[in-house]
Amino acid sequence: MTRTCLAVILAAGESTRMKSSMSKVLHPVAGRPMIAHVVESLVDAGISSVALVVGRDAEPVTSAAKRGDIDISAFLQTERLGTGHAVLAARQAIAKGYDDILVVFGDTPLITAAPLTAARKALAEGNDVVVIGFRTADPTGYGRLIVENGELLAIREQKDASEEEKRITYCNGGLMAINGEKALDLLGKIGNANVKGEYYLTDIVEIVRAGGGKAIAVEAPEAELMGCNNRAELALIEAAWQKRRRHELMVSGVSMIAPETVFLAFDTEIGQDVMIEPNVVFGPGVTVESGAVIHAFSHLEGAHVSAGATVGPYARLRPGANLGRDSKVGNFCEVKKAEIGAGAKVNHLTYVGDAFVGEKTNIGAGTITCNYDGVNKHVTRIGANAFIGSNSSLVAPVSVGDGALVASGSVVTEDVPADAVAFGRARQEIKPGRAKILRDRYQAEKAARQK
Amino acid sequence: MTRTCLAVILAAGESTRMKSSMSKVLHPVAGRPMIAHVVESLVDAGISSVALVVGRDAEPVTSAAKRGDIDISAFLQTERLGTGHAVLAARQAIAKGYDDILVVFGDTPLITAAPLTAARKALAEGNDVVVIGFRTADPTGYGRLIVENGELLAIREQKDASEEEKRITYCNGGLMAINGEKALDLLGKIGNANVKGEYYLTDIVEIVRAGGGKAIAVEAPEAELMGCNNRAELALIEAAWQKRRRHELMVSGVSMIAPETVFLAFDTEIGQDVMIEPNVVFGPGVTVESGAVIHAFSHLEGAHVSAGATVGPYARLRPGANLGRDSKVGNFCEVKKAEIGAGAKVNHLTYVGDAFVGEKTNIGAGTITCNYDGVNKHVTRIGANAFIGSNSSLVAPVSVGDGALVASGSVVTEDVPADAVAFGRARQEIKPGRAKILRDRYQAEKAARQK
Amino acid sequence: MTRTCLAVILAAGESTRMKSSMSKVLHPVAGRPMIAHVVESLVDAGISSVALVVGRDAEPVTSAAKRGDIDISAFLQTERLGTGHAVLAARQAIAKGYDDILVVFGDTPLITAAPLTAARKALAEGNDVVVIGFRTADPTGYGRLIVENGELLAIREQKDASEEEKRITYCNGGLMAINGEKALDLLGKIGNANVKGEYYLTDIVEIVRAGGGKAIAVEAPEAELMGCNNRAELALIEAAWQKRRRHELMVSGVSMIAPETVFLAFDTEIGQDVMIEPNVVFGPGVTVESGAVIHAFSHLEGAHVSAGATVGPYARLRPGANLGRDSKVGNFCEVKKAEIGAGAKVNHLTYVGDAFVGEKTNIGAGTITCNYDGVNKHVTRIGANAFIGSNSSLVAPVSVGDGALVASGSVVTEDVPADAVAFGRARQEIKPGRAKILRDRYQAEKAARQK
Repeated sequence: MTRTCLAVILAAGESTRMKSSMSKVLHPVAGRPMIAHVVESLVDAGISSVALVVGRDAEPVTSAAKRGDIDISAFLQTERLGTGHAVLAARQAIAKGYDDILVVFGDTPLITAAPLTAARKALAEGNDVVVIGFRTADPTGYGRLIVENGELLAIREQKDASEEEKRITYCNGGLMAINGEKALDLLGKIGNANVKGEYYLTDIVEIVRAGGGKAIAVEAPEAELMGCNNRAELALIEAAWQKRRRHELMVSGVSMIAPETVFLAFDTEIGQDVMIEPNVVFGPGVTVESGAVIHAFSHLEGAHVSAGATVGPYARLRPGANLGRDSKVGNFCEVKKAEIGAGAKVNHLTYVGDAFVGEKTNIGAGTITCNYDGVNKHVTRIGANAFIGSNSSLVAPVSVGDGALVASGSVVTEDVPADAVAFGRARQEIKPGRAKILRDRYQAEKAARQK
Repeated sequence: MTRTCLAVILAAGESTRMKSSMSKVLHPVAGRPMIAHVVESLVDAGISSVALVVGRDAEPVTSAAKRGDIDISAFLQTERLGTGHAVLAARQAIAKGYDDILVVFGDTPLITAAPLTAARKALAEGNDVVVIGFRTADPTGYGRLIVENGELLAIREQKDASEEEKRITYCNGGLMAINGEKALDLLGKIGNANVKGEYYLTDIVEIVRAGGGKAIAVEAPEAELMGCNNRAELALIEAAWQKRRRHELMVSGVSMIAPETVFLAFDTEIGQDVMIEPNVVFGPGVTVESGAVIHAFSHLEGAHVSAGATVGPYARLRPGANLGRDSKVGNFCEVKKAEIGAGAKVNHLTYVGDAFVGEKTNIGAGTITCNYDGVNKHVTRIGANAFIGSNSSLVAPVSVGDGALVASGSVVTEDVPADAVAFGRARQEIKPGRAKILRDRYQAEKAARQK
Repeated sequence: MTRTCLAVILAAGESTRMKSSMSKVLHPVAGRPMIAHVVESLVDAGISSVALVVGRDAEPVTSAAKRGDIDISAFLQTERLGTGHAVLAARQAIAKGYDDILVVFGDTPLITAAPLTAARKALAEGNDVVVIGFRTADPTGYGRLIVENGELLAIREQKDASEEEKRITYCNGGLMAINGEKALDLLGKIGNANVKGEYYLTDIVEIVRAGGGKAIAVEAPEAELMGCNNRAELALIEAAWQKRRRHELMVSGVSMIAPETVFLAFDTEIGQDVMIEPNVVFGPGVTVESGAVIHAFSHLEGAHVSAGATVGPYARLRPGANLGRDSKVGNFCEVKKAEIGAGAKVNHLTYVGDAFVGEKTNIGAGTITCNYDGVNKHVTRIGANAFIGSNSSLVAPVSVGDGALVASGSVVTEDVPADAVAFGRARQEIKPGRAKILRDRYQAEKAARQK
């Protein structure tokens, strides 16, 4: 029989030290809000009931946490009286009756499903409270886990720890699983008889033991429990996330010359034998198929790169860019909402937006699809095997047929039939000797001024 | 009563290991000469009298150290006979009579005001010589500070240190404060009876004690005392500077996804809730207001970015770029000496130089302000709510009125009145079937050649 | 008398964990296949006879290892039965009779000549087997070198090591030199009586000693022995290579503001007093002369940059770009197979390909050399002191004479004589009030639709 579980996400912090106009759990890691990472790990752990304890920015925080595959209810914590008090903001949800209550934090986005599942397993094995801990080289400042014969006796705060206890390197990660049947009773017993007058969730360990219950700790890697109090810590979390994902991709067969300069989004998917050069940024929504090459200084977002395609250097693929097999988008090119056919080339200083480019078509350097008339966006359709001469302007809506050729420097305002040549440029005139005359005149004027 | 102070900056080194055509103190850190950082910290510490001991490149070094708020005199060290000898090059300045003499180095640009002030405070408290020290994990090679009962007994060089002394991790940072009244006397007693025949400033500790004076050490963070002997060390200094400044900005409310890829200048100012994506380079003279976004691969120098504006990716703002509120400068765009009005957009492959762009005006992709005629630079003025079609050339001096529209691909050489449309492009002609004929002819020729 | 030497390169691995469609020794480090680095170090060590043991991708691996100054023969290892068996695949070459047999690996590209030479020297001094070892902080998993009185007694694998032996930090690097006369005899004695049934080259140490011969170890820096089993390790090797080369360049007088963001190729040559800003990528074949400046976000490959020239930011130099003294190539410019004359400027948004640009010529922003007609590439020749107005298209083959001037926005299809002015653009027309009419019409239509 599967046990039911409610995850309580604490996300009501004031985030003061973030010095931000929004709640810290909305700050992005790998291109999406921190809190969405926490929810993703809950889903990965098979948990679909979520109680979200919110404070500041309640509406956008709830909205960032929502997704179709979970059932979420938000609870406003109006006073900030400690973590024990915060969990009880979700009293109504807890009271519905779950086998397991899992308490997680909105600002530890690196947590994975594994320790959550381990904590629930420990509940299933008869423990009443399961604390997720971590081992660290320098435990100063953390609550120490006092473990004896496999049981967790207490969480000892730094200030209360004896010299011997201070040497303990197994620390409280904050996350916790609680027997759902006993949860409200245990939480209700947490008192606030301390200096700050706050209700500390950590007290639950001694409370459960005092009542004859069992507490235990399960270990998670330290990196998964990194929390975020200011933007320097946010950057450390981002760095840890990136490092983990880059490593996964590399061992799965993606080459990165300088992984530390490649920035991935939460949903970046990259196939085997893809080569990624230094300094590449992936925004959300990118898939790269096997054997493609992403050259240095490229920036991709909402784009698909087919097998064998070449991107960059200095290519920017914006949402809706869809590069066909063996196609190329080269330096200082921007592609937006456009299909680039198989084998087509967009190699230099070009803007292709709201467009279809046929197979094997070559778009010359400096070409611009003029897709915007100041009011609406229009579409440019270019057939297969066409050739657009350099520095051309294609004024949409317009189409260029298969095999057609546009002369360099043309402004194309009318459709070009298949196999036709289009010219749209002025005839050249020469004024012999005129440049010399201009120069001489300038020199004379300059000399005159200096007299 | 405030004590008077003369700072003596030693900047006469030959910089041989820099392998450089200029003195090492002229090499930039965070976009300005190393020595200017030292002077800045002196000013931060409230010191305004400076004696600069120069050797190589005396003129440019002096000029790099000068600033309006200090009184600086340069002294040429003609022979290189050690640090004790170097300080005495400024004998004339020291002789003017100051309460405190502070000796600093031109090549330790990370020093801050705090240890300088601490050293002067120690003088005020009755010490005669105050050495600025640092603690380090591996002291090998450094002079060790021999401290007993709070007094500094000696600075022991590595080669003269006993095994026990070698284990001391408190080391000589080189910088020193000296009782101004006694300074010339003490400095004069430094001898050169050593292997190299040089005058070592560090001998002053034992000299002052022999005369019944008191020496003491004050501690500075190791990082502040990093010196620079070659360009690899220069890069480490730059890295430490960048790390410090990035951290300051992040905790003040600036987001950086990958702080290690953001390069700041000495005077970069960034407001709260600004988001800086990976790979952004700030040259000198940049201010970014609150809530702006600087996308990846952007390069800013001498530019102002107003609140809510968006820069990049791949935007280059050069000196004089002034972006209005909520304006946008996008990919492969260069803006130089130009006002971009509130809400205006310069989004793709554009050069805007010597120009005024009005509010809410849209500059199409590939637009070039042709500001240079080979001899002089001219100005382009574009009104508000105008629309410049893609791939247009605006040949300055020229103006486009409010609400005017320039057709795509136009060359604009004459002023465009408000609300007018300007065309400056050739009519398009079509040669039906011509592309196919050209292709067939080419194929035939190729076949003929191959026979 | 010089001793003869055969290097046996083991490069027959399946590279399974690389998850790659090609052999791991073909994966690039610093822009060339890993195995080519190994061969380079052999050449540096004065070795010119090479036996290459190949498996997968035999042909391309052999071809990547070949170079004019060595004599190489390839041997196919058909079964994979361990390193001892692999070396014997080259039996035929070993049998030719060499003083020294040196066994190296195709996937340790960081090895330098020094330890190879040290190993051969040890053979010359009378040792029969010389193992190249390294010292490491954490030896877990490596074979330990059991050394006594300067002799190497055995290589003890992790699983066979005693507790005391596990504390040994001197480990087997895998590379080995063997007395050439005894090599086949010794190799032939290696057995496969072990769990995997493989022939381990490391057994040779005990074999040679059992026969009264002498074994010894020589030490190499740990970094030189980094091997590559997956792409994460490949990235670590690349990082180590880059770090080493950047340091060499910096101490030789090259400035790098952020060396960790500068990526060099195996053959990059940079002169003294060159300044390299952050984020610069060098592909193969680049030389930069003294005093040049390479600004941020530049990408160079197969290019030459003369003294005093300025590149970037955002400049892309492709193969055949040859920048003259004091010339400039600026932002969003691509230069391919082109000579840029001394003092010439190509500053903004320009493509120069298959071209000659004369001294002091100025190429305006947005200029495109239209070098490709869809079939062939053609050449553009621009003289000295010419001025190409912005946004011009030069349709090759075409030439612009010395001192000539091309008006902004022109399409140049015919040669421009020296000192002439060329125009190739339409006359501008103005439709007064037309923009307002269009806007009003649009607003009316929109209003009508909304009714």
